[in-house]
Amino acid sequence: MSSLAEIARICGVSLGATSKALNGKSGVSEATRQRILTTAAKHSYRPNRLVHAIQSGRSMTVGLTCNDFHSDFSGRIVEGMLEKLYGAGYDAIVINWDLCVHDGEKVLRTFAERRVDGLLMFPPADQPSQAYLHELQNFQRPIVVVDQTFFGGENYDFVGSQDLEGGILATEHLLNLGHTKIANFCHRKTSTGRARLEGFRTAMAKHGVAVHEPWVREIKHYGSNEPYQYARELLTGDTAPTAILAFNDWVALDAMAAASDLGLQIPRDLSVVGFADLRAASSVRPQLTTVAQDPVEMGRRAASRLLAMLEAGKEEGATPTDQQSPFLSRVPVRMVTRQSTSIPKE
Amino acid sequence: MSSLAEIARICGVSLGATSKALNGKSGVSEATRQRILTTAAKHSYRPNRLVHAIQSGRSMTVGLTCNDFHSDFSGRIVEGMLEKLYGAGYDAIVINWDLCVHDGEKVLRTFAERRVDGLLMFPPADQPSQAYLHELQNFQRPIVVVDQTFFGGENYDFVGSQDLEGGILATEHLLNLGHTKIANFCHRKTSTGRARLEGFRTAMAKHGVAVHEPWVREIKHYGSNEPYQYARELLTGDTAPTAILAFNDWVALDAMAAASDLGLQIPRDLSVVGFADLRAASSVRPQLTTVAQDPVEMGRRAASRLLAMLEAGKEEGATPTDQQSPFLSRVPVRMVTRQSTSIPKE
Repeated sequence: MSSLAEIARICGVSLGATSKALNGKSGVSEATRQRILTTAAKHSYRPNRLVHAIQSGRSMTVGLTCNDFHSDFSGRIVEGMLEKLYGAGYDAIVINWDLCVHDGEKVLRTFAERRVDGLLMFPPADQPSQAYLHELQNFQRPIVVVDQTFFGGENYDFVGSQDLEGGILATEHLLNLGHTKIANFCHRKTSTGRARLEGFRTAMAKHGVAVHEPWVREIKHYGSNEPYQYARELLTGDTAPTAILAFNDWVALDAMAAASDLGLQIPRDLSVVGFADLRAASSVRPQLTTVAQDPVEMGRRAASRLLAMLEAGKEEGATPTDQQSPFLSRVPVRMVTRQSTSIPKE
Repeated sequence: MSSLAEIARICGVSLGATSKALNGKSGVSEATRQRILTTAAKHSYRPNRLVHAIQSGRSMTVGLTCNDFHSDFSGRIVEGMLEKLYGAGYDAIVINWDLCVHDGEKVLRTFAERRVDGLLMFPPADQPSQAYLHELQNFQRPIVVVDQTFFGGENYDFVGSQDLEGGILATEHLLNLGHTKIANFCHRKTSTGRARLEGFRTAMAKHGVAVHEPWVREIKHYGSNEPYQYARELLTGDTAPTAILAFNDWVALDAMAAASDLGLQIPRDLSVVGFADLRAASSVRPQLTTVAQDPVEMGRRAASRLLAMLEAGKEEGATPTDQQSPFLSRVPVRMVTRQSTSIPKE
């Protein structure tokens, strides 16, 4: 790989002449042009996009903060983003949010210093600091938040899933089977978790079924064994639920594991519903009934929205706060009925 | 966010004076310096790293090609990489290999034009073209290949797993339980698949147990239902294996699903061993016995190796072909015995 300067040096001509020859401009003799082009091909000349980025004021890069690569859900969102970005000539500079959340401002400063044209962000796992929100507000480039919203970030464009509707769908699926003793393993720390729980409460109220509050269990530490323990506790209690509505597929698998370890059979003794439709949902036996999301489409939509803003040339001076109505898009979900749900035992 | 030029314009002073003030150099009056610094703070001045990259000849970015974000395995490798890179002040420009593999040269040209300082690459899913290999050879920056090798890429630094040893461990685990009728669902298209299969053959030969070739089944299309179908065929045949050694955990789960759908019980009727120890391996029931890999450590080692080369200043002119002995590191694996294996029925 060679730069323009290296080609000029090898040919023994000026930078100006080399630039003219390589960019097809006049002002250089045909013989010199041919010599420069031949040398460029031989030495794998590659134009320097950093120079172009400075000259044009557009780096053709997008910052991407992701809080979790190790799941096929966020991974597929990233894939959808990259597909769209790459197709439009943009590259993504990726920073793993989880690893850097102790210093969120630094992440944003890095993106600013790298002159990314826009930002695609999974929200931080924890509520961001005032300093962070201030840095974000001063970012002055288009921002699209994906999957989950966060307090202080309400004015940014957002692409998510129909979490509320999904919560309703899942609950009505169980209600329609005849379940009324439904537990809910929720994750209120996240906007998705709050919306799904709201969907549960909405559907229960609509069908006139009371929510048994001790069965609404909060997952405080996502990824811990809380769901497993909660299921164990409820299933060995005096009155056990006949169904568990889980925050997502992993939580559902934990509940199924607890039931299995207690010698219970799914769906005969317990119905379980997940959320996401990860690969594991259809790999396990019994196959998991779940609310399917479309993470690739989420990523595509988020990137498309950002690209549209970049195309519209809004990247200069369009601070999020001056947008009266931020863009909001929720990708549809659908109920996927498999083997983990059936009519209740009694 | 403001650039140096914007601060200069707002203050009504020259670019040179602004640069001097912001970089703490002499040649500007104290009053002007204070005015510039105050303005810079007020308008969120951010230095332009693109300029610094051109001046220093180091972009402090690393190209990263990943063939699969939607698995917790490659996702964790990426996390390990980002942790090390970010800690050393580097950012990663990520391109999803799967989406771009039809034009691998373009991916490499993009990285070259972005002047990345080095390259971390998951190998392409299919054998790369001669044009691609030529482009790679002309890349002239450090390259570390991770997880799988590829034909034509033998001379690059490599960080992988102990796949051969893992294949031996898994096979000996089954042999020690008393299994001799062992099927192998392999994936010879990949170097990891070939090494694991070799480990299987090595262990079988060492223990004097003949490999029944019709039970060595090749996964031609990874992610298809081939493993499920293979398991179904073998388990309903006249003579069925008592154990299946799977290329990885997903293949193992497919085999377990086929057994379950045939009414067989694991491990009573069939033992199954996976490879990787993905999250699903311990979530499912019965829990999967598997060969655990350490993908985060793989990512860290690959990034550390790249950073060491960058530190050593080898980024100029060190083509991979002039390295007599490329760096080779294989992260240890370990056997994790869970519930999917036991002594054979008979």
